[in-house]
Amino acid sequence: VDVHRSLLSKNDHEAAHLREHFRADGVTVINLMGSPGAGKTALLEATARALGGTRRLAAVSGDLATTHDADRLLRAGIVAETITTGTACHLEARMIHDVMHSERLREAIHAGDFFFIENVGNLVCPAIYDLGQSANVVALSLTEGVDKPLKYPVMFKNADLVVLTKLDLLPHLADVSLAAIRDNISRVSPRAAVLALSATSGEGIAAWTDWLESSRLGASQARAGAQPLLQLGRRAP
Amino acid sequence: VDVHRSLLSKNDHEAAHLREHFRADGVTVINLMGSPGAGKTALLEATARALGGTRRLAAVSGDLATTHDADRLLRAGIVAETITTGTACHLEARMIHDVMHSERLREAIHAGDFFFIENVGNLVCPAIYDLGQSANVVALSLTEGVDKPLKYPVMFKNADLVVLTKLDLLPHLADVSLAAIRDNISRVSPRAAVLALSATSGEGIAAWTDWLESSRLGASQARAGAQPLLQLGRRAP
Repeated sequence: VDVHRSLLSKNDHEAAHLREHFRADGVTVINLMGSPGAGKTALLEATARALGGTRRLAAVSGDLATTHDADRLLRAGIVAETITTGTACHLEARMIHDVMHSERLREAIHAGDFFFIENVGNLVCPAIYDLGQSANVVALSLTEGVDKPLKYPVMFKNADLVVLTKLDLLPHLADVSLAAIRDNISRVSPRAAVLALSATSGEGIAAWTDWLESSRLGASQARAGAQPLLQLGRRAP
Repeated sequence: VDVHRSLLSKNDHEAAHLREHFRADGVTVINLMGSPGAGKTALLEATARALGGTRRLAAVSGDLATTHDADRLLRAGIVAETITTGTACHLEARMIHDVMHSERLREAIHAGDFFFIENVGNLVCPAIYDLGQSANVVALSLTEGVDKPLKYPVMFKNADLVVLTKLDLLPHLADVSLAAIRDNISRVSPRAAVLALSATSGEGIAAWTDWLESSRLGASQARAGAQPLLQLGRRAP
């Protein structure tokens, strides 16, 4: 327990450092979490389609293996890198710091409007590791059933927004209702906003990009102080 | 890393002890893993319906919070208990040992044909903790997409059987084919068996119960030696 607490405290320190850089860059950072297959990558692909070049997007995808997700994001026009976690079931602040060695990513974040951190697919551990984000977004597929907020309370308590995905499948899910999921979310997280959408049909995507734009205001107010993120990990000239 | 290795070694020791007891009882123990919402509980409910009293079933459900899953299993006629893990994202052998304090469960295992350990919904950490099981079964919902075996390789490498769930939704999933998922499973785990089924429609359930019966044979061959599990944690008379 002490080892765990000490690791978390070290992570918080590193996350605070990242957050300073992100604020200086005026980039809004979204920590996107959810189960495997919740549709996190599909949501970011749909985001790129919807924002259609009006916003500059950067992303990292955390995965135990493969570069599939970052490859998909690159094809969607997002500057993206992979963080390969091996056996780790979550991202930590030092992994975000390390991936800034990619100059391409660093510059995309520095000049960017949104930086999406697509976490490892997992409803448990990612919730407790601060990554310097502006907001926590949890993607929950409607196919996962209505009781997940009650069964994974820490993840939902820490959410600023819960995005209910795969709305196009709702007519085929006999035991699922949006009202029941919303009710369960509000029980563990009264302050979390909730949106339902389908990355496939596009339904609800406009409300999501509206939410992104509104989340941007707070970040831009803090656009002063600290050195630009660009200098993170930069070699001496 | 050393702390982690030492914890795993302690777990392996406790799991070996559990396995001896399970073998002495002649009970086949299934470690059922999968993402949140993969349909693990629904699969066990369908199993109870299909075996219709011909086999004696016991189960534990691991969850961070709530007793929802074990409550559902009880209603389906399975002797079931909850293991509340709090913040832990997986079950460990000592948690299985501790839940044997439930006399009802202990006796159901002792007299039982199958003991299902429904692990915490997570495709990462549960894969590396031995619980004394006879077999590892991974439930993978077709809605999670085709690439999960490649992205969570340890879970699938350690699987004896992968059960593809929610087969009734396949006609509505444009990017999913059974052939692609089977191909990806065989890449990381050539020896794993694969079944597709729907707990809702009942399609494929017979092949699953056939697999369960075949997995039982191996266990019954080891039905000698060691003290019965019933004595685990039993107070002195």
